[in-house]
Amino acid sequence: MSDPVYSVNGELVPPSAATVSVRDRGFMYGDAAFETLRSYGGTPFRWADHAARLEETCETLGFGGALPAVATLRERVAETLAANDLEDAYVRLSVTRGVQPGKLSPETAVDPTVVVMVKKLPRGGTTGERVWDGPARLRTVETERIPDAAVPSAAKTHNYLNGILARLELRGTDADEALLRAGDGSLTEGATSNVFFVQGETLRTPAASLPLLPGVTRRVVLECAEELDIPVETGRYEADALGDATEVFVTNSTWELRPVTAVDGRSFPVGPVTRSLQAAFDGRVEALY
Amino acid sequence: MSDPVYSVNGELVPPSAATVSVRDRGFMYGDAAFETLRSYGGTPFRWADHAARLEETCETLGFGGALPAVATLRERVAETLAANDLEDAYVRLSVTRGVQPGKLSPETAVDPTVVVMVKKLPRGGTTGERVWDGPARLRTVETERIPDAAVPSAAKTHNYLNGILARLELRGTDADEALLRAGDGSLTEGATSNVFFVQGETLRTPAASLPLLPGVTRRVVLECAEELDIPVETGRYEADALGDATEVFVTNSTWELRPVTAVDGRSFPVGPVTRSLQAAFDGRVEALY
Repeated sequence: MSDPVYSVNGELVPPSAATVSVRDRGFMYGDAAFETLRSYGGTPFRWADHAARLEETCETLGFGGALPAVATLRERVAETLAANDLEDAYVRLSVTRGVQPGKLSPETAVDPTVVVMVKKLPRGGTTGERVWDGPARLRTVETERIPDAAVPSAAKTHNYLNGILARLELRGTDADEALLRAGDGSLTEGATSNVFFVQGETLRTPAASLPLLPGVTRRVVLECAEELDIPVETGRYEADALGDATEVFVTNSTWELRPVTAVDGRSFPVGPVTRSLQAAFDGRVEALY
Repeated sequence: MSDPVYSVNGELVPPSAATVSVRDRGFMYGDAAFETLRSYGGTPFRWADHAARLEETCETLGFGGALPAVATLRERVAETLAANDLEDAYVRLSVTRGVQPGKLSPETAVDPTVVVMVKKLPRGGTTGERVWDGPARLRTVETERIPDAAVPSAAKTHNYLNGILARLELRGTDADEALLRAGDGSLTEGATSNVFFVQGETLRTPAASLPLLPGVTRRVVLECAEELDIPVETGRYEADALGDATEVFVTNSTWELRPVTAVDGRSFPVGPVTRSLQAAFDGRVEALY
């Protein structure tokens, strides 16, 4: 493969030249929206969902009007994939508020910075190789999820220290994903994932009304569950609810459905509900080829 | 004056070349510490306090060991000021976790990115020109301050969306600083400032135990108040406590002591306690020349 190429404001450049100004608000304040998605066979999976969330995040941050047209963004993604000769890939698309005079209060006139980064990622699916090294091991951390009243959790932004602090708590443990609780102790999500668990016949996941980012993969899993007639409940759960679970898995665009085999030291099998949902998810991926 | 020059990892470069990689964690996640300070007559004001807080922030973020020596950082600031022929200036010093493999969990090996930006700022002090256009007008906003349990408020990081969302609420009003409350309704701080108010003879400011960034200027003001025998109380206050105040002012390194003449539409005079403290603060600045 040739050397990788990124897209910065529509210019295809090698990583060494893929830079932003130190005055860019995306750098100074994390004042930016982003999406992480996957391309399967050259098609960005659930592009419309990701584009819609990107628009919502930019609206929340007050620069929705400056977001380039969705078709333009998609073209930037497509040309970055093509320039790297990639069909199965990870894609990170960021839009910042750009460079503005040196004040925290944003100006209304926005010249956004648009960055597309891609890298090869194995296909997954029914016959492919999984991207994760193995099942996840979770650990409930002390770092609490930022409440919606402080920063709306549905916005996917470059302010990721909450998740980083949560992940730092895993150092010295064998866990690789942190489970965050809200201030009232209820279960919210992983640092970069949504969490699902099975109790009895029912698939459960924390409700989107809680402080969590309801991921695109979470939505696809809920669709698959409906298709498979698996009863689903979204609600508010104590963190120890997982103790009664028979299966646990986490989801995000990169991991797809990743089984969980340990939570706070307790072991879980990779069970039949997880496998059925993985197969249904894989079917949707296969349909793109 | 010649064109400005910034320092990026020790290289003095023009702003057009002052960039960071799009893979820098400071850009991707706001995974960075910073300080804003002023140079008066070529001397960074309260350098030791700023350097100590920068170290604390990097410790909180888990890369304290990667921070360059304080003497090195000070040298970078000094050479950036000299290259710009500036003695009275605003200085922004940022240290990021640098570029790492594309995972949220930070690696322990850190090659930090160090950026120094400066710009000319009038001297202030007893005979100088103030940097702010006039007194501040505050407005209490709905955006709540992020709780310490989610992101420790004493850390000064590139995750500034909480303050940006607060400032966005000021659009369409005549206010220029947002007052944030904690989840329990208690008064915390401005988006980029600490708040003080006078009730009776007493100078009051929210306690550092609350979710707020206890600024270096806040500390200097408390020292000045002690020197002037002004009674001081730090505590927990309801946002409407300001309604009973006779004077209000805000502080940060750039603004120094900035009087407040309006809070949620109620007017305040620039009173004698504010003026006395300004004079005492100015005396400390003058002493540097």
